[in-house]
Order: sequence, then structure tokens, then C-alpha cells
Amino acid sequence: MTDSRPVDSRPHVVILGGGFGGLAAARTLANAPVRITLIDRRNHHLFQPLLYQVGTAGLSAPSIAAPLRHILRKQANVTTLMDEVVGVDTTAQHVHLTQGEIGYDYLIVATGATHAYFGHDDWAPYAPGLKTLDDAFTIRRRVLLAFEHAEREDDPVKRQAWLNFVIVGAGATGVELAGALAEIARHTLPREFRRSDPRKANILLVEAGPRVLPAFDDDLSAKAKKQLERLGVQVRTGEAVSTIDEHGVKLGDQHIASHTVLWAAGVSASPVGAMLGAPTDRAGRVQVEADLSLPGHPNVFVIGDLAAATQANGKPVPGVAPAAKQMGNHVARSVRARVEGQASATPFRYRDDGSLATIGRMAGVAQFGRIKISGMLAWWIWLVAHVYFLIGFRNRLVVLMDWAMAYWTYERSARIVVGKDETAQARTPPGD
Amino acid sequence: MTDSRPVDSRPHVVILGGGFGGLAAARTLANAPVRITLIDRRNHHLFQPLLYQVGTAGLSAPSIAAPLRHILRKQANVTTLMDEVVGVDTTAQHVHLTQGEIGYDYLIVATGATHAYFGHDDWAPYAPGLKTLDDAFTIRRRVLLAFEHAEREDDPVKRQAWLNFVIVGAGATGVELAGALAEIARHTLPREFRRSDPRKANILLVEAGPRVLPAFDDDLSAKAKKQLERLGVQVRTGEAVSTIDEHGVKLGDQHIASHTVLWAAGVSASPVGAMLGAPTDRAGRVQVEADLSLPGHPNVFVIGDLAAATQANGKPVPGVAPAAKQMGNHVARSVRARVEGQASATPFRYRDDGSLATIGRMAGVAQFGRIKISGMLAWWIWLVAHVYFLIGFRNRLVVLMDWAMAYWTYERSARIVVGKDETAQARTPPGD
Repeated sequence: MTDSRPVDSRPHVVILGGGFGGLAAARTLANAPVRITLIDRRNHHLFQPLLYQVGTAGLSAPSIAAPLRHILRKQANVTTLMDEVVGVDTTAQHVHLTQGEIGYDYLIVATGATHAYFGHDDWAPYAPGLKTLDDAFTIRRRVLLAFEHAEREDDPVKRQAWLNFVIVGAGATGVELAGALAEIARHTLPREFRRSDPRKANILLVEAGPRVLPAFDDDLSAKAKKQLERLGVQVRTGEAVSTIDEHGVKLGDQHIASHTVLWAAGVSASPVGAMLGAPTDRAGRVQVEADLSLPGHPNVFVIGDLAAATQANGKPVPGVAPAAKQMGNHVARSVRARVEGQASATPFRYRDDGSLATIGRMAGVAQFGRIKISGMLAWWIWLVAHVYFLIGFRNRLVVLMDWAMAYWTYERSARIVVGKDETAQARTPPGD
Repeated sequence: MTDSRPVDSRPHVVILGGGFGGLAAARTLANAPVRITLIDRRNHHLFQPLLYQVGTAGLSAPSIAAPLRHILRKQANVTTLMDEVVGVDTTAQHVHLTQGEIGYDYLIVATGATHAYFGHDDWAPYAPGLKTLDDAFTIRRRVLLAFEHAEREDDPVKRQAWLNFVIVGAGATGVELAGALAEIARHTLPREFRRSDPRKANILLVEAGPRVLPAFDDDLSAKAKKQLERLGVQVRTGEAVSTIDEHGVKLGDQHIASHTVLWAAGVSASPVGAMLGAPTDRAGRVQVEADLSLPGHPNVFVIGDLAAATQANGKPVPGVAPAAKQMGNHVARSVRARVEGQASATPFRYRDDGSLATIGRMAGVAQFGRIKISGMLAWWIWLVAHVYFLIGFRNRLVVLMDWAMAYWTYERSARIVVGKDETAQARTPPGD
């Protein structure tokens, strides 16, 4: 690919990835004397903290996603391209895309992470994870169709296998999925089925570590566990899944029959990290300098979930949206300082704005430094914060309206199955 | 499949298909002394008249679709099953499903129609039609990605092929798609692209017949054509497409390079029609008796797009939602009369409530008997009618809000690409 426009003498900043980090970097450079190319393999920015709501039929996809070029339409120094990175040459300073290559003066790599199965990629077809809208549609389809299959099944043992839901991993995503599934089974669906009883659904939340929501303090973890159990979720901590297949999961010696296993356990960094030729940690994240630059390449920055950065207290910077945004802002300011001839390479300092998690209806936990909140107040803080940070006026309004309707009616607005029923195979498993 | 519940002595009415016809039949039987099983291969009722808005990124899927079992949750005599019909035995009176079989006393077949390529099934991958939500997502993806590909392409000839859109068939769906595409190209996208100009998009509407909107009178067809041309749509009537492939379409001797061809030209009846063993017409529709029953089977009815029914004036009953609803109501009343021991087999009479079509922004045509309306007033009538008939309070509100936002801002709320880019192949066509 060549650029046929008149030569532009401004330094060229290439940003890979339009998530929270990449988008923050682009916006912070709005009035800087640079030209920016933002490249993402998808056409949209995704508000990932609410993705579980799309997966559990509470929100429609357009409510939590907006086209990147629409978000950046008024920022004249940005060109948005939809393409995928296949290589990075940090010596020649260009990025290889599926269509041609593009040179850079500054490179900001913000391609994030995806879910990972810790060497068990064979589990992927049976235990979808939740990182993209496509993932969310897959989970929505599986969950809704499980209840449909239960309604068709006369054998009570086989029927229960359709009503057993296993969620692997009890971080924020796992906890939120479990809470939403419990609400669907107990409140949304019961009146609508004639042969099976959705209230017989078992929602099992499995965590290999000692407690749920490990990012929170012990006491809040304990409170979150109680709130989950009140919703009817079975929580099993300190137990690792050893097998996942079309029949269900194996947990220690116990086999749990289930056709709907959801994966919320592990992430690994985007493969673009490995293309940079720098040391990476076990999860594939790039070990960056204090200013988030690539070792030996002061004009290349790695931010967000792809960066293995360290806080002042020695702990790793967590893989959350506020951290990605802060990193994006930080490197954008460094780039700007440098092109304006000022000193730069200031170290990045993560500011912890607190943690929030929701647990079904009107429950949640929140932690801001030493302040800890649980229950209904935490849920309200969660709601206000998430609606506030949603991009675009219309999205906020639609999300609020959907939630208000869901609150009054228990109905979920997006209970639409599209795409192929990939569980059809599982109906008559071999030898069953 | 067996039913393990206590034997129910009420006559069993099986309804195949949860579109406008099947749903109307189920609802009209709400208080009748029958038990009803409604079977659909999808979990939702779809408001098909607005499907083109999902395809052109104006509405999200949940805004025009609702789960069948949710719609019917309060009607205690209905069981909803999600399954597909594989055969019908009108002698033994049972329906074969992919999972088991189900007996009936009365059968109402309302499985509708799908798009058809008149013997050119090889055109299907290059010219998607618009009947299901999956179809709408495919069209949305192709349309949005065409502009993305144009932005990536430096060669002006190849770029224009991405900006040429061909819509085959100028019935209501074709006209509505063309109007929406013109609006997207001229108003929604221009500010957002830096290299290519979406306003250079050509929207070509091709119709083999002599005029657009053949369901309307000549003068309204002419007005619709003018309104389309004012929007920038090129209308070519009396010309048939002879080839569709990855390079574009052939129209007479002219080849039009295009990677985005949409099919709005033909429908053929659902394959369930052929399973009934009765005579069908060229489009596969079942030739029914005057009371919509299957010849020789007074307890089997065929309604909606699957039925080849005739009006009093000798014209066929059109394949539109109001006709399907009227047929559903009619056969439900016949069934009810019969189970209550009254005479039945009254002939169906179609009541023409008028026709409406919209043509982009604030334009349209409407015909109610001798009253003919075009322009802005027709558009308002169209809007009120469509929002009124949308199922569910929330959907109506969301649709109205989306349209109000779209009207003020020209933005479309569902510009999200999900799924695989199947046009990727077309980028480097063989020998190019």
C-alpha cells in the first residue's frame, strides 16, 4: 500500500489496536503536530466491561460498540484503517499488514489480550471465552439454546445436562456471567417453558484459586461469594478443571455433565507482542521500560493488556480498562513532548481508581483504597460508572433504558438466537 | 419425543412456523378448547418489514425480533418448541421433526418463503438475499466492509468496484435497501474517511420488469423512481442480470464491476410445502382450497407466503404480512368453529388494507384503494404503521429513538461488523 496524497512532513504515529489504550493515545494526540494512523482488525471500539451483558442477552451489540472511524471522525489528524498486523520491523520502522506495509516514526502497540486455555486448546470448542462480540454471540446462542434443548428432552438425566452451566474462572467476568445466568434461570425464563423448569438450572462457578474476585481484598471476596450463593450460584474454589469435552467437565474425581461450559479463566497477550522481538513474560506480555517503551527502541511503546508493566509497589499493573487508558495517555504525552523537542521518557505511574464488580441484581462489591463497599450501594456505583464511561450519548441512553426495563420486568431485551447451533452434535454424544 | 404429561383430551393443534401467519393463528386460538404446539426452527418472531434496517445498520437485531415463547408466555394453551420439520404424514396425522415426531388433530402450516435465484444457485455467495437475521448481518457486514476496502485501495478502478453497489429486484425490499444505501454513502459516512470518498458510491437498482414497486399503480411507481433518483440511486428497469460472480454483474452486454451485490428479486416457498403431497405452483406454493385447507385434508391448512390463494377478483393474494395475519386469523376461527361443533369451511376473503413503501429519508409511496400518496406524508404513514405493528413496547420505543437520532445526526446506530469477512477472497480475484 502506498499513500498517494501529498507528502506530509509531520511525524507519523502508528497506533495498533483501537481498544481503551489505543483510543486514549489517539485522542490525547488530537492537537499534536503529528499525523496518526490507527489500525484495528475490527471496525469498532468495544466497551468490554459490559460484554458479558451481550453474552447473556441483556444488551444488543451496538449498545456497547461504536465504529472507530465514527468516534474519531472529527479528529482531522487521524486516519483509521481496518487491517491486521502480520509483522513489525523495528529496524526499518514499518508494520506489515495483510495488505502492504506502513512506515512509522512512533509506534504504539495496543493489541491487547485474548482468552487462553493454558495449553488445552482442545477445550476451546466446548468452553467459549468472552473477548469479542463474536464470542458474546456464541455464548448467548449456547445459553439460550441449552434451555431450548432441555425443553425438548424427555430423559431427566439428559435434560439436567442441558440445565447444568459451568463457568470456569471467578474473576470479574466469571462472577458477572454467573450472576446473570442465575437471574435468567430464576426470573426471566420460568413462565415461558411448559415441559422443563428453568429454575432447576445449576450454575456452577469453579475457581482454581482460593477465592472469587482475587483482585479484591479477602473480606470483599467473602461477601461476593455470599451474594453469589444467595442468587443460587454454587461456588467451588480451590478446585481445578482437568477435562472439558462434549459431555461436561471433570473437577477432581467428579464428572459434571454439562453442555454449556463458559471459559473465564485465563488470558494471553496478543501475538503482536512476540513480533516485537523483545522479552515477554509467561502470558506473552512484553516487558517494557519504565516509560512503557520497548527496550532498545525509545520510539516504540507497548501499552494496555499487552504490556507487562510494574507499579511503584512492585506489583504488576492490572489488565483493566483504566490502566490501559492511563498508559495510552502517558505515551501520547511522551510522543508529543518528543516531537515538540522537549525531554521525555518519564516513567509511567499507575493510579488505582478502585475496583468494581457486579453480582446479578442490585448486588456488587467496590474497593477504593481502604474504602470497601458491598451490596446495593456497590451496584449503584458500578451502574453509574459503567454508563458514564460508555462511549456515545445514544448508547448510554439505550443501555439505561434496557436496564430499567430489565429491572421492572425481569425480561432481557436481546434474547435472539442467530447463527448455527453448534451444540447440535452434543445432543447425541457418541456412545450415549 | 413423547409427552410424559397427563393425557390431555383437548384437540391438538400443531402450528408450523412463528411468522405473522402462525403467530396470528396461535393468538386467535387463545381461549379455544384446544392445546397448541407452535414449532419454529428459530427462537424468535421476526418483524420482517424492518429487516432491511438491520441489514443497513440502522437498527439492532433485538429491536425487530422477540422470542416466540416470550410473546406467547401468558397463553397457557401453547407449548413452543424450537425444531425443524423434516416430513409431514397427512394420513397418520403427524409431523416428523429432527427430534422425534408429533401427532396432530389440526395442522396449520405457515413456514413462509425464502429468497430464490431462479435456477442460479451459484449466485448465492455473491448476492446475499434478505429473509433472516443472519442474512441481514451478512448484508450489513458486506456493505460496511466495502467502504473499508475502498479506503485501503489505491488503484482507482479497483476502488470504484468496492464503491459500486448493485441491488437486483425493485420490489419493496430492493427499493428500501437502495434508499438506505444512498443515505449511508451520501450522509452517514463521508466525514469519516480520509482517503476514499463514500459519496462516489454508485447505487444501482436493477429490475427485470418494466417498473419499480410493481405492487403499486403506474403513477406511484413513476413517483417512487423519481424519489430514488433524487437520492442518487440509478434505476434501470426492463434489464435482467445474466451473470453474478466475484467480479460483479452482467447486465445485457455491460459488465458492472462490483463486490457488493444484494438480491431482492425472487422468493420460493418453504420446502415444507412439497412435503404435504399437494399440487404446488411454480414458486413452490401450495394450491389451497377456498378455506385455505389442503385439498382432500380438511384438517390441514396452509397460510401465508406458502399458500397460493386467490382473491375474489381472481388475482393472487399477495405475499405480505397483513395477508398472512388475516389467513392465520381465518383458519384459527375455522378450527375453533369445528372443535366447538359448528359448521366451518368458510372461504377466506383477503381485505386489502393498502400498500406502503419507504424510499430513504422522508420519502415514500402509499396506496389505499383509490387514495394515492407520495413523498413526506407517505413516509410518516409508513413510520407510524411500522412502529405501531412492532411487537413489544420496548422495541417500539428503541426503534423510534434510533430513528429520531438517525434523523438528527444522520448516524446509524448499528454500524458494527461481526463475523468473518467473506469478501476477503474477492480482493485478489483469480487472474487479477
